[in-house]
Amino acid sequence: MRHLTVKDIDFLAVGAAVLGSGGGGDPYLGKLMAKAAIMEKGEVQLIDVDEVPDDKLVIPSAMMGAPAVMLEKLPNGSEPEISFRAAASFFGTEVCATMSIEAGGINSCIPVYTAARLKLPLVDCDGMGRAFPEIPMVTFSLGGVEASPMVCCDEKGNKVVIESINNAWVETLSRAVTVAMGLSSMIGLYAMDGKTLKKWAVRGTISLAIEIGKRIVQSNQKKMSPVDSILEVTNGYRLFEGKVTDVQRDLTTGFVRGKALFEGIESYRGSVMRLEFQNENLVAFLDEKPCAMVPDLITILDRETGNPITTEHLKYGQRAVIIGMPCVDIWRSEKGLAQVGPRYFQYDIDYVPVEELMKEQSR
Amino acid sequence: MRHLTVKDIDFLAVGAAVLGSGGGGDPYLGKLMAKAAIMEKGEVQLIDVDEVPDDKLVIPSAMMGAPAVMLEKLPNGSEPEISFRAAASFFGTEVCATMSIEAGGINSCIPVYTAARLKLPLVDCDGMGRAFPEIPMVTFSLGGVEASPMVCCDEKGNKVVIESINNAWVETLSRAVTVAMGLSSMIGLYAMDGKTLKKWAVRGTISLAIEIGKRIVQSNQKKMSPVDSILEVTNGYRLFEGKVTDVQRDLTTGFVRGKALFEGIESYRGSVMRLEFQNENLVAFLDEKPCAMVPDLITILDRETGNPITTEHLKYGQRAVIIGMPCVDIWRSEKGLAQVGPRYFQYDIDYVPVEELMKEQSR
Repeated sequence: MRHLTVKDIDFLAVGAAVLGSGGGGDPYLGKLMAKAAIMEKGEVQLIDVDEVPDDKLVIPSAMMGAPAVMLEKLPNGSEPEISFRAAASFFGTEVCATMSIEAGGINSCIPVYTAARLKLPLVDCDGMGRAFPEIPMVTFSLGGVEASPMVCCDEKGNKVVIESINNAWVETLSRAVTVAMGLSSMIGLYAMDGKTLKKWAVRGTISLAIEIGKRIVQSNQKKMSPVDSILEVTNGYRLFEGKVTDVQRDLTTGFVRGKALFEGIESYRGSVMRLEFQNENLVAFLDEKPCAMVPDLITILDRETGNPITTEHLKYGQRAVIIGMPCVDIWRSEKGLAQVGPRYFQYDIDYVPVEELMKEQSR
Repeated sequence: MRHLTVKDIDFLAVGAAVLGSGGGGDPYLGKLMAKAAIMEKGEVQLIDVDEVPDDKLVIPSAMMGAPAVMLEKLPNGSEPEISFRAAASFFGTEVCATMSIEAGGINSCIPVYTAARLKLPLVDCDGMGRAFPEIPMVTFSLGGVEASPMVCCDEKGNKVVIESINNAWVETLSRAVTVAMGLSSMIGLYAMDGKTLKKWAVRGTISLAIEIGKRIVQSNQKKMSPVDSILEVTNGYRLFEGKVTDVQRDLTTGFVRGKALFEGIESYRGSVMRLEFQNENLVAFLDEKPCAMVPDLITILDRETGNPITTEHLKYGQRAVIIGMPCVDIWRSEKGLAQVGPRYFQYDIDYVPVEELMKEQSR
């Protein structure tokens, strides 16, 4: 057990955005919210998954919608509490902690915010080990955990509680509500007991994000590139270095869907990378051949600072390093790939782990 | 106080569809649901607005969405109870009755269904004196009554509870939910106490609908046209007689939007009527000049039987009598017209009561 300080949040927000694979929201906004809550209410206790009693309830809190919209449509600050309380009111058992549903600049920080405001501990875990665009895409789904009752709140004061027959319907209904709320909402969902959490959680995500963030911030202080240091701690690979030559985004479905093109620089000169995304980066094509794909993590780092660039911040002319990192094992199972593999996202390709694709390439 | 029998439902469904102004749902479906519930659970007590205790709660129950869809996407039967119970659970006070939110083939019958299943009385009133397409379009809105908490249920078993900052947001969010549920949902909303109900209800709607329905059914038995008899009891006017030559409908927004063209027959030969609708008939144009408009009631009757034809049943070749009926006075106030007048529906015309338009025409 340890305590998260304001300093940790600097590391957490940026490190979680690396794990966010282009999604999970802007780290700057997440950082501001979590820091403000800690400054006002005090440090947040970070507990291990094994510290959660089997029979006590944990409710994750998060933000849903198009990250590009969250940047301009700011929360009023009370939504996480409202959504968390509404979700909590459905259960008779005591709620003992909150947690992240996914790793990302916003969605790793919102639970810190909720934890600080409600004086609850934060569990060191998440439900993805990365970020994904849709509600059922969590390890808990594989374990049959229900996302519902799910609460959606907006900054205007509207609140919607969804009780659905399955997680796909929770996605359909909450997406419609989130779009109607103006493309973003604050949510509470996947309430579960400690016993279930221990079985299905991706453990240590918050600590890992803080470690990654620390390496980035400290390298920057020494005017060094943190890329190799990030690859070391994540077992990742350098996929490409290049300059953004085109970005296309479409927000109408409640997601940020689109693609970015990169023109190679240095040793990658003459090559082109195409990155396709739905909130998160889905597949990286190097000269039209896939070199990393969901559920493995694909993240764009600023070439100078090593800071992660989320899909909503991609711009023409940016110099970037694109890295690929292996996902947690559970996603590589048959059930996992059916939920979040390339075919789920309409790609007619079989999943090949990033480490194998890299081996093939170096041959 | 009286009891609604299975026989009354035959009258109610068809009479309410006349008041439904083209909307409010198909009377056949409403009739089947209400009759089945009475046969199973017993007759429904019909009480007067003044019989509702000031401090007791009344919750209307209804169906929302595109009537054309309700015909094919049938309820599973338990939704009114689920939505009603969920709405009721928000309030500490005792729920003593249910009621119609609008007059219409389905929405006058659903509350009978709910009343029978829950063994509650039905109040002889509604919130419109007709049907309207949007949630805030009830007399209760003019009295500042909140539609929220509103419950939406579907036949699959999904349930959504909406708590909003105003009735316009209830409309936005519940419409999104209803579209996501497949364009129709069962709803409970506008819970209010007896004191409020007495001030804002449109009284006697159920009795009036039964009286209209009785005249239609009895005229049919005598092989006579019921049109004059309907006009008598509703203070209505014959606007046109004609044959449907074209119908256009669009369902994508969660409403049935469109228009129907009629070619005059008999004394109307040589004239054309255009009827524009959004679930309900909005404006009737006789040779391009408005001859009746919202909030006055415009209803299409089958020329032979006098049975009302709702917008989802309009078909090429039908012979129809189009009638116009004055709305209740409250809609003709400044506040009422702002909510449901022609300008609200994007028509650049000032409201003129149907009786004045008819006087002008006869001059």
